[in-house]
Amino acid sequence: MRASKYHLNTLKEAPSEAEVASHRLMTRAGMIRRLAGGIYTYMPLGLKVLRRIEKIVREEMNAAGAIELLMPVVQPAELWVESGRWEQYGPELLRIKDRHQRDFVLQPTSEEVITDIARNEIHSWRQLPLNFYHIQTKFRDERRPRFGLMRGREFTMKDAYSFDRSAEAAQASYDAMYAAYQRIFSRLGLEFRAVAADTGSIGGSRSHEFQVIADTGEDVIVYDPDSDYAANIELAAAPCLIAERAAAAEPLIKTSTPGAAKCEAVADLLSLPLAHTVKSLVLATDHADKAPTIWLLLLRGDHDLNEIKAGKVPGLDQGFRFASESEIVEHFGCLPGYLGPIGTTRPVKVVVDTTVANMHDFVCGANEVDFHYTGVNWGRDLPEPELVTDLRNVVEGDVSPSGNGSLLMQRGIEVGHVFFLGDKYSSALKATYLDENGKPAALQMGCYGIGISRIAAAAIEQNHDERGIVWPRALAPFEVVICPVGWNKSEAVRAEAERLYEGLKAEGIDVILDDRDQRPGVMFAEWELIGVPLRVTVGERSLKENMIELQARKQAESQQVQTSDALDVIVARLTELG
Amino acid sequence: MRASKYHLNTLKEAPSEAEVASHRLMTRAGMIRRLAGGIYTYMPLGLKVLRRIEKIVREEMNAAGAIELLMPVVQPAELWVESGRWEQYGPELLRIKDRHQRDFVLQPTSEEVITDIARNEIHSWRQLPLNFYHIQTKFRDERRPRFGLMRGREFTMKDAYSFDRSAEAAQASYDAMYAAYQRIFSRLGLEFRAVAADTGSIGGSRSHEFQVIADTGEDVIVYDPDSDYAANIELAAAPCLIAERAAAAEPLIKTSTPGAAKCEAVADLLSLPLAHTVKSLVLATDHADKAPTIWLLLLRGDHDLNEIKAGKVPGLDQGFRFASESEIVEHFGCLPGYLGPIGTTRPVKVVVDTTVANMHDFVCGANEVDFHYTGVNWGRDLPEPELVTDLRNVVEGDVSPSGNGSLLMQRGIEVGHVFFLGDKYSSALKATYLDENGKPAALQMGCYGIGISRIAAAAIEQNHDERGIVWPRALAPFEVVICPVGWNKSEAVRAEAERLYEGLKAEGIDVILDDRDQRPGVMFAEWELIGVPLRVTVGERSLKENMIELQARKQAESQQVQTSDALDVIVARLTELG
Repeated sequence: MRASKYHLNTLKEAPSEAEVASHRLMTRAGMIRRLAGGIYTYMPLGLKVLRRIEKIVREEMNAAGAIELLMPVVQPAELWVESGRWEQYGPELLRIKDRHQRDFVLQPTSEEVITDIARNEIHSWRQLPLNFYHIQTKFRDERRPRFGLMRGREFTMKDAYSFDRSAEAAQASYDAMYAAYQRIFSRLGLEFRAVAADTGSIGGSRSHEFQVIADTGEDVIVYDPDSDYAANIELAAAPCLIAERAAAAEPLIKTSTPGAAKCEAVADLLSLPLAHTVKSLVLATDHADKAPTIWLLLLRGDHDLNEIKAGKVPGLDQGFRFASESEIVEHFGCLPGYLGPIGTTRPVKVVVDTTVANMHDFVCGANEVDFHYTGVNWGRDLPEPELVTDLRNVVEGDVSPSGNGSLLMQRGIEVGHVFFLGDKYSSALKATYLDENGKPAALQMGCYGIGISRIAAAAIEQNHDERGIVWPRALAPFEVVICPVGWNKSEAVRAEAERLYEGLKAEGIDVILDDRDQRPGVMFAEWELIGVPLRVTVGERSLKENMIELQARKQAESQQVQTSDALDVIVARLTELG
Repeated sequence: MRASKYHLNTLKEAPSEAEVASHRLMTRAGMIRRLAGGIYTYMPLGLKVLRRIEKIVREEMNAAGAIELLMPVVQPAELWVESGRWEQYGPELLRIKDRHQRDFVLQPTSEEVITDIARNEIHSWRQLPLNFYHIQTKFRDERRPRFGLMRGREFTMKDAYSFDRSAEAAQASYDAMYAAYQRIFSRLGLEFRAVAADTGSIGGSRSHEFQVIADTGEDVIVYDPDSDYAANIELAAAPCLIAERAAAAEPLIKTSTPGAAKCEAVADLLSLPLAHTVKSLVLATDHADKAPTIWLLLLRGDHDLNEIKAGKVPGLDQGFRFASESEIVEHFGCLPGYLGPIGTTRPVKVVVDTTVANMHDFVCGANEVDFHYTGVNWGRDLPEPELVTDLRNVVEGDVSPSGNGSLLMQRGIEVGHVFFLGDKYSSALKATYLDENGKPAALQMGCYGIGISRIAAAAIEQNHDERGIVWPRALAPFEVVICPVGWNKSEAVRAEAERLYEGLKAEGIDVILDDRDQRPGVMFAEWELIGVPLRVTVGERSLKENMIELQARKQAESQQVQTSDALDVIVARLTELG
């Protein structure tokens, strides 16, 4: 490609709403343009990146035996009613009506449609296993779309769906996809980690996320550097930090703690470690036919509530909310900040984190403004805890589930997710096959997503510097840029640039020749912003000594190369780059 | 590909709603599956056809200098308001609201978005010409979707948009696209014709349609076999068939024509040629502030109204409808069937076809049930016609605009359309560039569509027989199928089939090996239905004589080939096929 025939339009400034590097840099580099909130046009450079990702994903999916098809963007509501998600899915599911006032959705994912296809297409065990995938436009009507492609509303996703005869066979399909994902993200040249994860609104019994490691990631990953263990913090099991509860040593005392509405302030005031305090969180669950149930969750003062874990507590698993101030006052006789399990005005359901259940002589609110209890002990000052479970987020240093070593944390961006669905959708939609005995059985399913457009953004979060994007070779919109200095002035420069351009094209390398006669500084800055992995500079002075210059985007130093060796050296350098 | 690892599911019966061959055959061959009215899943075989079309389109668009990007499916209403099409576009434009009740559309086409991009991206004449295209999902909420992919609601379209400095430069861009389209449809292996066409809801001043020739096409093409002339009947100019009006020879007589409400019946009854009769058509145009205007259109009895031409008559060009019976009775004092221009009860606007304006002694309705006038003459029995224009469809035998030879007709399926837009959208959206003198000027635009998914259907309408689809090689989901007879029984058959399979793959040929051990009749019928261009049959008996059989889908006779020559012969036969 010649730059003069292409459309390049880099910007000095990023839009003010761009909060993260990928959003800023993709906009500045001219890769995306905002059309509406969370809706972007992929400009030519951006589309090239997308296509590279798609190609690798497609190749590995095909190699793993998955078969590509294409399901529609607009899907009839009936199937979503059948699966139950027409009701369950929140406002992120964009519901639309056609001219005849029939209900449709813009697909956020395709479990319903593929299960409908499966029940029509799969009749016999002989057809199994089957794995269908498509790469298609998705829409999720995010309340607050942001971060550019990271949390857009319209985006491109690869979603695959496997169908098997048994849970064991479905596990094998799951494992095959897991392995394909490992290959995909390796080929993309990204640092990533596969982590155990929660199944969320997709459902099913097991799942792994593929996380691109980046400081700016929204997800927190917990991992054990000495074993295979890695999990999303949402799912990572937190150990009980106190093996056995010690006997009570202090009396129960109601202590004045004026203005100390947080555990940190109480610990400060009483000169106690934060780990001696217990925090009280109040949740509510609503019922159609009676007043809300109020729940008191107890965590150690230095721990944070894990809402995913709370959502798995029986009674909270149909959805919960934080209690209102009036509900709190009604049940505790006290404003938030001084709440505790002793002497509530009305009964509440108490859920106790495993660590809290083994604490003794602890501090908690006294249900009276400006007062806490110290020396609180289970069994003596309040009943033994009944509902004890893991409620907290893991913290760095927690013991690994492997038993030795302690957990570390890093941040990641979820770019892939594999789910073991079992018969969740096939039972709802009655998708059965005839087994070897001629009896109908529910198909066992898995589903496997990759956020194609999000990968582009995640790659930038992981690979950029103050000058711009630093694409891994596999994702770069062009692999090499040739920058002739003095294009309009020097016949020799033009000839050498053209020779290299034609030579690299003949090698199958995706090269762009900047024939716009720009000043070197402007030209170099533009290509550094765009992030092309290798720059070849052809200048008159060097040419007199039969030299050209190579500059890898991710290295500080450039390299002078003999023109006679140039093509070979460029190809070799590219190979080094991935 | 091995059939055992692929998903094939052919059907004996087509769905009852499938009215045309392509819909029946794509469904039976397992290429598409209906999800909702006008919304289809492309099954693996169907998607392969789509991808082949996309690849050829993309290659030729790139070769013509167009640059690919990707605009969103969901577009904000604001831009459509700006262009005026939010109001003008009918219910085919699917309007949706997001969770914040903001208005959006599902794109049926992208003039608005690309013009918005152009006004932001194009600053200077130095950037021109530019031509952007994308291949993207479109949605048109057809009132009555039918014919499978031919008139679906969700479909895939390639749309390109050119931007130029002047009308002349824009014409050059138009010509380049016209030439690219010629190459695209030639490479696709389809019989097609480029025809002058009406610009419809896209607008602009000039356009050509690319029509795939097929008896089942919805469009009628008019062409002159002796010149370049070809046009959609909507646009084709009809000559006046009477060079000069002859003098009146008959008196005006009111004649009883009981029950003869059609020109054909009147001509029969009076033993006159149909060409002596004049038919009366009554239209109405509505106004905000006054009663509708009623229009009487006069055509020769053997001619048909061309509504596109009527829609260009001043006064009818803002939209018209056929008048209601009560409006007709009010203005003519008579029920439809016996209407005419003489003695209406209230004034009507009369529009006269060019041929009718030169008729003499003609027959028309007397505005009295069961009566017609004969011997009607302009100037004597009614005023000379004021508004005379071409109102009729061309008929076969009409003189060609080239002057010599007469027009022929054939039916076609519109698969591509190029439009010269001028500044229609750039003026509405204020998309300007700075010219060489630093002055802002409106961009001159063209737009260029290709119905990717419709091409697949049109190709089948043109190429099928009673056994199934007959794909041109360029579109076929597989180029060659290897059918081993007795796969599970004969080691020799398996070995030869595998040898050919690997050999053809090594040649870069897209081959499928039917390793499902099916009976030959079933297997052959399935691949004939799917329409693979070349079948290789490997059977035990022939193999004993070192022979295999080649069968081209579009030829009756098969060919025996020595196994030693087989690969070369297969490659040669494929080359013959396109």
